[in-house]
Amino acid sequence: MGWMADESGLNKCTANYVPLTPLSHIQRAASVFAEHTAVVYGSHRTTYREYHARVSKLASSLTKLGVMPGDVVATLIPNITAQIEASFGVPACGAVLNTINTRLDADTIAYIFDHGGAKIAMVDTQFLPEVEAALNRMDGTPPRVIEIADTEAGFKATGKYPEYEDFIKNGDPNYSWVMPDDEWESLALNYTSGTTGRPKGVVYHHRGAYLMTMGTPISWRMTLNPVFMAIVPLFHCNGWNHTWMMPLLGGTVVGCRDISAKVIYDGIADEGVSHFGGAPIVLNLIVNADESDRRSFEHTVEVFTAGAPPAPATLAGIGKLGFNVTQVYGLTETYGHVVECLWNSAWDDFEEDARSAIKARQGIAMPMMDMTTVVDQRGVQIPMDGSTQGEIVMRGNSVMKGYYKNPSATEKAFSGGYFHSEDIAIQHPNGMMQIADRMKDIIISGGENISSIEVEGAIMAHPAVSLCAVVAKPDDKWGEVPCAFVELLPDHTSSEGEIISFVRGSLASFKTPKRVLFQDLPKTSTGKIQKFELRVIAKDA
Amino acid sequence: MGWMADESGLNKCTANYVPLTPLSHIQRAASVFAEHTAVVYGSHRTTYREYHARVSKLASSLTKLGVMPGDVVATLIPNITAQIEASFGVPACGAVLNTINTRLDADTIAYIFDHGGAKIAMVDTQFLPEVEAALNRMDGTPPRVIEIADTEAGFKATGKYPEYEDFIKNGDPNYSWVMPDDEWESLALNYTSGTTGRPKGVVYHHRGAYLMTMGTPISWRMTLNPVFMAIVPLFHCNGWNHTWMMPLLGGTVVGCRDISAKVIYDGIADEGVSHFGGAPIVLNLIVNADESDRRSFEHTVEVFTAGAPPAPATLAGIGKLGFNVTQVYGLTETYGHVVECLWNSAWDDFEEDARSAIKARQGIAMPMMDMTTVVDQRGVQIPMDGSTQGEIVMRGNSVMKGYYKNPSATEKAFSGGYFHSEDIAIQHPNGMMQIADRMKDIIISGGENISSIEVEGAIMAHPAVSLCAVVAKPDDKWGEVPCAFVELLPDHTSSEGEIISFVRGSLASFKTPKRVLFQDLPKTSTGKIQKFELRVIAKDA
Repeated sequence: MGWMADESGLNKCTANYVPLTPLSHIQRAASVFAEHTAVVYGSHRTTYREYHARVSKLASSLTKLGVMPGDVVATLIPNITAQIEASFGVPACGAVLNTINTRLDADTIAYIFDHGGAKIAMVDTQFLPEVEAALNRMDGTPPRVIEIADTEAGFKATGKYPEYEDFIKNGDPNYSWVMPDDEWESLALNYTSGTTGRPKGVVYHHRGAYLMTMGTPISWRMTLNPVFMAIVPLFHCNGWNHTWMMPLLGGTVVGCRDISAKVIYDGIADEGVSHFGGAPIVLNLIVNADESDRRSFEHTVEVFTAGAPPAPATLAGIGKLGFNVTQVYGLTETYGHVVECLWNSAWDDFEEDARSAIKARQGIAMPMMDMTTVVDQRGVQIPMDGSTQGEIVMRGNSVMKGYYKNPSATEKAFSGGYFHSEDIAIQHPNGMMQIADRMKDIIISGGENISSIEVEGAIMAHPAVSLCAVVAKPDDKWGEVPCAFVELLPDHTSSEGEIISFVRGSLASFKTPKRVLFQDLPKTSTGKIQKFELRVIAKDA
Repeated sequence: MGWMADESGLNKCTANYVPLTPLSHIQRAASVFAEHTAVVYGSHRTTYREYHARVSKLASSLTKLGVMPGDVVATLIPNITAQIEASFGVPACGAVLNTINTRLDADTIAYIFDHGGAKIAMVDTQFLPEVEAALNRMDGTPPRVIEIADTEAGFKATGKYPEYEDFIKNGDPNYSWVMPDDEWESLALNYTSGTTGRPKGVVYHHRGAYLMTMGTPISWRMTLNPVFMAIVPLFHCNGWNHTWMMPLLGGTVVGCRDISAKVIYDGIADEGVSHFGGAPIVLNLIVNADESDRRSFEHTVEVFTAGAPPAPATLAGIGKLGFNVTQVYGLTETYGHVVECLWNSAWDDFEEDARSAIKARQGIAMPMMDMTTVVDQRGVQIPMDGSTQGEIVMRGNSVMKGYYKNPSATEKAFSGGYFHSEDIAIQHPNGMMQIADRMKDIIISGGENISSIEVEGAIMAHPAVSLCAVVAKPDDKWGEVPCAFVELLPDHTSSEGEIISFVRGSLASFKTPKRVLFQDLPKTSTGKIQKFELRVIAKDA
C-alpha cells in the first residue's frame, strides 16, 4: 500500500482523474483524425468529423424521444452503418446499448425486451417481422421501434416506423455528450446465447471496454490507421469491442451485411482491409473460395479467430493466401477476447504440424487482464503438464459487472474471487492454455471424460470431411457415448464405417464415435455449431 | 450517468476490478516473454525471467532493510542496470521511487533527501562524493546508502557501503510483490528542476503510469518486441515511463551510462535499437557524428524528441540517416509526454520546409489524455488561428496527484479544473498547439510580448550558428530587450553585428536582439538550456 507519509492535497480532482470510457476515443478522433475515413458501408463513406456528427445526432434524437441516462436501447441490425453508429450514439446519451442477435426467435427476443426493459428498439427492415411477433408476445411495455432500411441491399422502409436517416436528420450535431461520471457505469447489455435455459444479460462497464481497446492493439500488432472489416456481428460482445477501438487508432471500419468470400476479398483489395476477426468457418470460406471471388493483394491481413481452434489444414491453406491467423479466446462475460495465442519467433522454424499444434492453443492472458489460468475443483492451480485438466478462470478489468437482475448467477460466476469460464482446459509448461471442452460438452463414457474437441480433431483429419461436431448420446451401458455429425466437402463421399475405422488409428477405443451421421450442421450467425440441437438428434440416432 | 434501473449484484469485486499499475506488465512478461531479452547494459544481459527474479530480489532486500509500503527510496544512478531494475524493484515492495538528478549539487540533494524523507539512497559510485556532502548537510535522518559500482565503466566499489550486487544477492527471487490495493496509491516522487526557488516533489499514481504505458505504443507506432535505448535519464519523469512500458510489449531496454553518437549507433547496429527518446541535442549528436562513429542499419529508428522543437536542419539531416523524429511535449507533472505531433500522411508530399514547420509544432493530446488545449487568462479557449497566444492547460489520467507536502502549490497548479503548464502557445486551425514560450521566458519590450523561441529560430537559420538562447535583458527605456547567446559551429565565425543584421530580414525591429554574446550555453544533463544562468550574465552585458 503505497500511501506516503503525508498525502495532503494529493486527492483526485477533475485535472488528474477522468473516468475511463471508449467514448473518449471518438471525441479525440473527431479532432485528431477529422478528415480520415471512419466508416465505409456500400456507398456510405464518412470521415471522423462526419461520423462524430452523425453519432451526436443519433444521441440527441434518442434524448428527444425521452431516452434518459441508464435507459436501455436495443438494436437488431447487421453490421451496417446504423449498427456501427449505435456503438457510440447510444452511450453518448448515457443509455445502455443492448445489441440483440438477429437470428433469435420471437419468443427469445420478447424475453430480452421484457428482461432488459428496452425503451427503444432499432431494427433492420429484414428482421421487423420477427421483432413485431416479439412485441406482440411481450408482458411489459414494448419498446418504440426505429426502422433501419438498407436499400442497397434491397430492404426498403416499410413506412410503419420512423426510419433511421429521418430519425437522426434533425438531431443536433453539436449535442453535448453524457460522459460517465464513474467508469463503473453501465455501457452495454449483452445476452448470452442461452443454450441452457433463458439467456443471461451480461452488463459491461465503461472501464472494461476502454481497457479492451487499449490492450487489443498490442496483441494484434496494430499501428495507426488500420482498416478493419466488421465480420464478427456487433451483437457478439459488441463485435469484440473493435468499433470502440477504431477511433483510438484512427482506423476505418468497413461494415458488411452478409459475409461471403467475395465480400471479404473485395474489402481487402478495394478498401485495404488489414484486420478482421471471425470464427474458423470464416477462414474456411476464404480457403475454399471460388477462383472468381478471389482478389490479389500485397499486404498481410491479420486475423483474430475464436470460437473453436482453427484446423491445421485451414491454417496451412490460409497462411499461403496472405493471412496471419491468431487464435484468441474469451466469452461474452469478458467483452470477447482476453486470451491470445501469442506467437514466439523461436517457433518460426518449426515444422508446419508443430506450428499448427501451437496455433490451436488458446494461449495466455492479453495485456489488459490480470490473470487467466486453469484450476482444479478446489480452485488450486493445476500442474502445467499438458495433460491435467481443470477449469479456465480469469481475473481482470475486462470482466463484466455481472448478470442483469440475477445476483445469484453473478455470485456463482464469481465464486472464489475470479470468473469461472466453465471451459475445461489443460495448460502447457509455458503457461499456454488449451481447451479440452466446454464443461457441458464433455462426454462421460464409462466414467471416463471424453473431450468432444479431441474426437472432432481426429475426424477433421479425414480428407473428405469439411466440418464435424461430436456430442454425447445417452447409452444404457456406458452412460454416454460419442456421436459424430459430419459435413462432407463438395464432391466427396464417405460412410459411417469408413470414418469410424479412420479415427481408430488415432483415438482410444472408448473415444471412437459409436454413430456417425452425415448432415448440415446447425450454426449460429457466426458459425458456432449449435450442439444442443445435435444432442436432440443424437438421442434417437 | 449510465446506471441501470437495477444494479443489484453488479458491484466491483476481485474478479472484475484490479487496480491499474505498470507492475502488472512485468509480472505478465516474466511468464509470457520469459526467455526474451529484457535488459542489456554492457556485458549484462537478462531475460524477462531473470529480470523479474532480480527485481524481486531487490524488493525483498529492501524489505529486509526495513523499507515499508509508502516509504521513499531514492536513487542517484545513470541509466544502467540498477537504475532500470529499481523502476520495478522499489514499487514491488510498495515503496515510492524517488529518482534524483545526478547533476544536482549537494545542497539541493540534501533538500530533496530531507523533503522526500528517503529511507534508502541507491547511489552510483561516481556520484557518492556529492551525495556524501549532501548527507552531511541534511537536517533530518539521512537515508542508508546502497552503492552501485560500475566496474565496466571504471567505477569500483568504495567498500564503504553495501554494494548493489551483494545487497540483492540474498534477496528472495520468489518474493511476493506488494501490489497496490488502490490505483491511486503513490508510485514515484520526481522533483522538478526548480529553476525558481526550491524544487517541488511531483507525486505519480499507479493509474497514471499504467495509462502512459498503454497510450504511448499507439502514438509511437510500436508493435511487439521493440528494442528501446534508455537515453532520456530515468530521473526525468522516470525516463518518460518507458521502462515501465517495455514489459507490456516484450521489449528490450538497452541501458547506457554516457550518451555519445558512437553509443547510439552501436546500439542500433549491434542490438537493433528501434526506439529512443531524447532532446534535440541528442539528434544533433547523431547528425554531426564523426564518420568513424557511424554505423549502417536497415530499419527506421523511431525517435521521440522533447524539450524544444527540433530545428529544420536537424530534421532534414536526421531523416536521411534513417531516423523518423516525432516531437512530443509534456512536463514532469504529466509523467512526460502527453502531447504528440501526430503526422498526417496527407502532409507527406509537402515541401521539406513545410514538413519541418509542422514537425516543430508540439501537437495534440496523446490517447491517454482527456484534453490538452490553450486558454486565455480567463480560462476561455483561444481562437485556433495560429496567432492568438494563451496558456497550455491539460486534463487527464496522466497528470500527477500533486506536489508533495505542498497543497497550496497543488491547488494553484490545478486551479480551474485543469493542470496549468505555464507554457505559452498558439493553436493552429487543426487544433495543433505550438509553444511560443515558457511564461517566464517571454520578453516584454515596450509593452510588446516577444517570444524568445521566435527570436532563437531566426538566429538558428544563420549558417554559422550551432545553438542559441535568447533571454530578457533589463533596459531602462523598454523595460526589457532581447539578448542572444550563441554557440557557433566548429570552424565558423561570425560577429554581433552580422547576426543582428541577419535577423533583421525576418524579425520585427523590436524583436531584434540588442546584444549578441558568443559562448558555450549552460545546459542540464538532457541538453535543456539553463536560461536562468544566462539572465544573470545578460543583466550586465
